[in-house]
Amino acid sequence: MSRSKKLKFSARPSKPHCSSSSGKVWLYGLHAVLEALRNKNRTFDQLLLLIKSAPELTLLLEKKCPNLSISPQLVEEEIFQKVLPKEAVHQGIALLTSPLPSVSLEDILDQSPQGPLTLLFLDQVTDPQNVGAILRSAAAFKIQGVGLTERHSPPLTGTLAKAASGALEIIPLILLKNLVQSLDLLKKHGFWCLGLDENASQTLDQINLPERVVFIMGSEGEGLRRLSRENCDFLVKIPTSPLFSTLNVSTSAAICLYENQRQKNLLLPPQS
Amino acid sequence: MSRSKKLKFSARPSKPHCSSSSGKVWLYGLHAVLEALRNKNRTFDQLLLLIKSAPELTLLLEKKCPNLSISPQLVEEEIFQKVLPKEAVHQGIALLTSPLPSVSLEDILDQSPQGPLTLLFLDQVTDPQNVGAILRSAAAFKIQGVGLTERHSPPLTGTLAKAASGALEIIPLILLKNLVQSLDLLKKHGFWCLGLDENASQTLDQINLPERVVFIMGSEGEGLRRLSRENCDFLVKIPTSPLFSTLNVSTSAAICLYENQRQKNLLLPPQS
Repeated sequence: MSRSKKLKFSARPSKPHCSSSSGKVWLYGLHAVLEALRNKNRTFDQLLLLIKSAPELTLLLEKKCPNLSISPQLVEEEIFQKVLPKEAVHQGIALLTSPLPSVSLEDILDQSPQGPLTLLFLDQVTDPQNVGAILRSAAAFKIQGVGLTERHSPPLTGTLAKAASGALEIIPLILLKNLVQSLDLLKKHGFWCLGLDENASQTLDQINLPERVVFIMGSEGEGLRRLSRENCDFLVKIPTSPLFSTLNVSTSAAICLYENQRQKNLLLPPQS
Repeated sequence: MSRSKKLKFSARPSKPHCSSSSGKVWLYGLHAVLEALRNKNRTFDQLLLLIKSAPELTLLLEKKCPNLSISPQLVEEEIFQKVLPKEAVHQGIALLTSPLPSVSLEDILDQSPQGPLTLLFLDQVTDPQNVGAILRSAAAFKIQGVGLTERHSPPLTGTLAKAASGALEIIPLILLKNLVQSLDLLKKHGFWCLGLDENASQTLDQINLPERVVFIMGSEGEGLRRLSRENCDFLVKIPTSPLFSTLNVSTSAAICLYENQRQKNLLLPPQS
């Protein structure tokens, strides 16, 4: 007996192919959609497969999502073009789904009242590809959450989810009404607030990173807002050449999380 | 007296707006074009400015490129759409220019016969955005060159140059006919070859990085080719969560170059 169930397809569209409405979002791309389908916090409205890619996608779905609660619809490329952004690299798969609930900072603090905890806050970083790439690194280094300012952050939809390559389903996302107030709350719970600033005098590797730390990063070009910067305990920069100093924000974030892992060895068993 | 010269515009196009031909390449985006205009190894055929962005772009050109040898042409959006790829975020500026000469490995070795030297080789990494992002990190950490396999590498044009944000003009690029033979040559010149492989048993931070090192990275998904992997002296992985282990290749590259800088302190004066 095979352990994976055979997929059933909708004989015809169960509803018209619609653009996202009533808060529903379209996700696309293999990793983004497969991880979303495995996420119990989501509900699903439509799953589209490109007819010509259906054989291999069906096998993959049967293997990776054996308890799939939605029947895929086989459609032509023009339907993808209708519901997705123009430049979307959809890999033949798209999903209309409920948005993810955001997590509150209080929830995260309640779960880990003490001990090591790493968070990353983005201060008005608006580019969805950068935010997606940052979520991917956050999942790879298994930190406890990423905070986005409620204003001037990208929507948690297709482009971001594609760049996150599945990490959107894994990393708790915190929508921050007021970044400075959130930093204050964290300080009361034993956190040190470490801002990235290319004009800082200290470099990241010169700091002994504390057990409970939040990294705060601004957008490329703008950097941290004044109040965000003033409410950090430390400001550090990545050690780069003065002639070509600025890294992409997602690159800077990954380097911070790598340095955090390197210093604290949070993922690997301690060396004997 | 003002130190910057006033720009002169072409009264009318000096030649028809053409797609790239005879090996010429279109670059676009602010950083990519400004750095290319400052690069003495390039010759310039056409410089286009979007009419509505011309006032601020002109000021910027007068400031950053005071000895500009080409007169810009003021054009409408439709000309940009004609010569650039559809999704190009051109920021109102585009440049038709000669491609850059590639550098030979022998040249780099002749210039630095001994002492610290860091190179990064990409084994068939085909995505231009990833390669561009890697060039940007290479420039920020001021390594001595990036090698691309002659086959299965992206063209050194618009998308790549935009992602490199000016670094294409700074980092010596080596086109590798045969990656394994290049590794052999480097070994004879005192290099250690360090391959990135997510199945490696050692992590990057567990290695004392040698003075002369070449990092070798494969494409996402595929990784290093078998012969490339077998010709490395060490294989290492970035310490990531087993549940979500793969980083973007440009992220992995940046982390390697950061760790290299951290261990060797090549950019900053030693701490007293």
